Amino acid sequence: MDPSKRRFLKRSVVLLGASGLVTSGSKEVGAFEPPDVPPWMKSPGAGFNEYGVPSKHESKVTRTLIRSQPGTTGSGAARTPLEALDGTLTPSGLHFERSHSGVPDIDPDKHRLLIHGMVKRPLIFTIDALLRYPMVSRIHFLECSGNSQFLYQPTPPSLTAGQTHGLVSCSEWTGVPLRLLLEEAGVDPGAPWILAEGADAAAMSRSVPMAKAMDDAMLALFQNGERLRPENGYPVRLFLPGWEGNMSVKWLRRLKVVPAPIMTKDETSRYTDLQADGRSLMFTYPMEVKSVITRPSHGMTLKGAGLYQISGIAWSGGGTISRVEVTSDGGRTWTAAPLSPLVLPRALTRFRLPWRWDGSASVLKSRATDDTGAVQPERDRFIADHGNNAIFHCNAIQAWGVAANGEVKHVYA
Amino acid sequence: MDPSKRRFLKRSVVLLGASGLVTSGSKEVGAFEPPDVPPWMKSPGAGFNEYGVPSKHESKVTRTLIRSQPGTTGSGAARTPLEALDGTLTPSGLHFERSHSGVPDIDPDKHRLLIHGMVKRPLIFTIDALLRYPMVSRIHFLECSGNSQFLYQPTPPSLTAGQTHGLVSCSEWTGVPLRLLLEEAGVDPGAPWILAEGADAAAMSRSVPMAKAMDDAMLALFQNGERLRPENGYPVRLFLPGWEGNMSVKWLRRLKVVPAPIMTKDETSRYTDLQADGRSLMFTYPMEVKSVITRPSHGMTLKGAGLYQISGIAWSGGGTISRVEVTSDGGRTWTAAPLSPLVLPRALTRFRLPWRWDGSASVLKSRATDDTGAVQPERDRFIADHGNNAIFHCNAIQAWGVAANGEVKHVYA
Repeated sequence: MDPSKRRFLKRSVVLLGASGLVTSGSKEVGAFEPPDVPPWMKSPGAGFNEYGVPSKHESKVTRTLIRSQPGTTGSGAARTPLEALDGTLTPSGLHFERSHSGVPDIDPDKHRLLIHGMVKRPLIFTIDALLRYPMVSRIHFLECSGNSQFLYQPTPPSLTAGQTHGLVSCSEWTGVPLRLLLEEAGVDPGAPWILAEGADAAAMSRSVPMAKAMDDAMLALFQNGERLRPENGYPVRLFLPGWEGNMSVKWLRRLKVVPAPIMTKDETSRYTDLQADGRSLMFTYPMEVKSVITRPSHGMTLKGAGLYQISGIAWSGGGTISRVEVTSDGGRTWTAAPLSPLVLPRALTRFRLPWRWDGSASVLKSRATDDTGAVQPERDRFIADHGNNAIFHCNAIQAWGVAANGEVKHVYA
Repeated sequence: MDPSKRRFLKRSVVLLGASGLVTSGSKEVGAFEPPDVPPWMKSPGAGFNEYGVPSKHESKVTRTLIRSQPGTTGSGAARTPLEALDGTLTPSGLHFERSHSGVPDIDPDKHRLLIHGMVKRPLIFTIDALLRYPMVSRIHFLECSGNSQFLYQPTPPSLTAGQTHGLVSCSEWTGVPLRLLLEEAGVDPGAPWILAEGADAAAMSRSVPMAKAMDDAMLALFQNGERLRPENGYPVRLFLPGWEGNMSVKWLRRLKVVPAPIMTKDETSRYTDLQADGRSLMFTYPMEVKSVITRPSHGMTLKGAGLYQISGIAWSGGGTISRVEVTSDGGRTWTAAPLSPLVLPRALTRFRLPWRWDGSASVLKSRATDDTGAVQPERDRFIADHGNNAIFHCNAIQAWGVAANGEVKHVYA
């Protein structure tokens, strides 16, 4: 445990000690006897499962499905229930999903990946072939550029943390560095772009700058230890750390080395950012520095004044989170929140801060800074700079209002 | 990417370049045309799932159930299929499971945790109360002390890497530091032991030294981001980083501060280590430094001479993995294998090394060293030191024999 963490815990203990019992749910008992033997100790429990699933008591912890194209199946997005999670990783079953024409059922033995275009040796790979190449493992977030788009609305949306910010998730991705395959194909050193095409019915396609492809891009085959999940690109996806999620093309079937961006439908009709002046930004790849408090958050109710733990996540496509500050008075005063020790580049970072609620109306916000010096902007500032015609790349500070009755709601403040 | 990693990749590229195409599955194509459009691109794919599951094409990747008590359900162990995984984390659905009387179906709203004994203020906690305390998140392995017990056998078991070594898994655990709760209860500073009791039908119970409880012990509530899985202690388990798995009592209902170890059935009739001289070791808590090659491993077949990637995991309850060496000639020569960058204390660490197989009979082994200087022993040495009466705490080096026909089998060598 690092020294800053120790200090944090020590301070928390002092707070607890000063307050007596921290919560209404813990109570002093008069006798030394254990509680009654519960019914589940009185007969043998359930047997083994070959592949385990969550407790039935957690059945409400699911992805939220928001279908963007009525009348279709599989065209839309499903969001991670951030408010029900803790730590820095996302279980694969709850990883967000964004698909443009559903999840293809791909036979891995029949799937092929083609590398062609401006290369000396066009190559076709089977999945078995890819599995024999050198691999790397890295923990990274993935974020849809449409995450938090509801904050462009003129009034605060009545949505949970997951419903507003749940198009971000974090996994350990394992795969083959793309540069190895490009070099094997004999890529033209002067070729500046690569077209990446998916094997879904939408043939989702994006143009990727060569510099990223030769830097930290990977062909991901494993997610959180096991093979990719179908909705995250099984059997192989492109993965571009820190860049908007749609660039990490799922179900990857083709990489074509090309002299200029292809201007596919996916980079002209969508994934451009309409500004206040009517112009659009294109090719806005890295996801901005951002954070959100996941607990307490919209839809929760605090049970009376007392000590609470503020917990949230921060991330940046530009680098590593260096600082998260939290306010409980709408921004008049800010306190640095200790970061959970696993602080990795382009990964979700957990921050936590004890907070003694005095029972009066309060506004909670978090503000992240990354190691490039980028700071998450207030919503007013963000809208003033970008307008509200866009739906992508909103990294404005998220505010939760706590009413005197303990109800927590999304507010603009 | 750290410099050593870069060097590794550069060397691999050179090898690839020297060899032409690395695998039989990648082939040069004569035209620049993409492969035929596969059937799964011709109609929209599947819709969204609230909670995702692996591809049906991965249905063979499951835990291996080995029931130790015939005629019972839920008394035994299920092992992680290590040979099918990569990276450092274990998906919770494949985390190993060791239960003594099945998995209790615990209603989290009715579950209670009692802290009593040598404390000023005995306390009872609900799960909601525990969720309001300060939390920490850490990535740690968990290993059953019975892992690799088949290596005590006089002849090599015909078992896969997961079947021999799959009682180890690695997760991000999030929970409340135990010391906070003990201090709130006013623990007697001189009290040396704590009894931990589970709410399963076996009332699984162990005595825990106070020093560990006040150091890095936690009450884990979340596993890989979501609430604990039922078979891993839902709704709350004790977690003692680096120590034999049974000490991290699942379904935790009671912590009693006591003056001496309780000598429960679980620390007398089992979890003691019978030595060659007939004496037993008790209270052997930390898991030793260890490693295993997961690919290639028993049951796989190499498809002809050529370049392969050796991949495996290493871990130590004593600290952080500092070095893994690999041999392909049965131990005559050893090469340091680069470690995947996420090298954390008491966590699985991935090592990988390219290996050019010349097609002759070979013996692969890995040997781990941790930052305390502890080195994984050869099996001969381990058996000479410990005898083969025991079933626990075997950390001997694992050897895989590769026959000239490419078949890989467990060997003693």
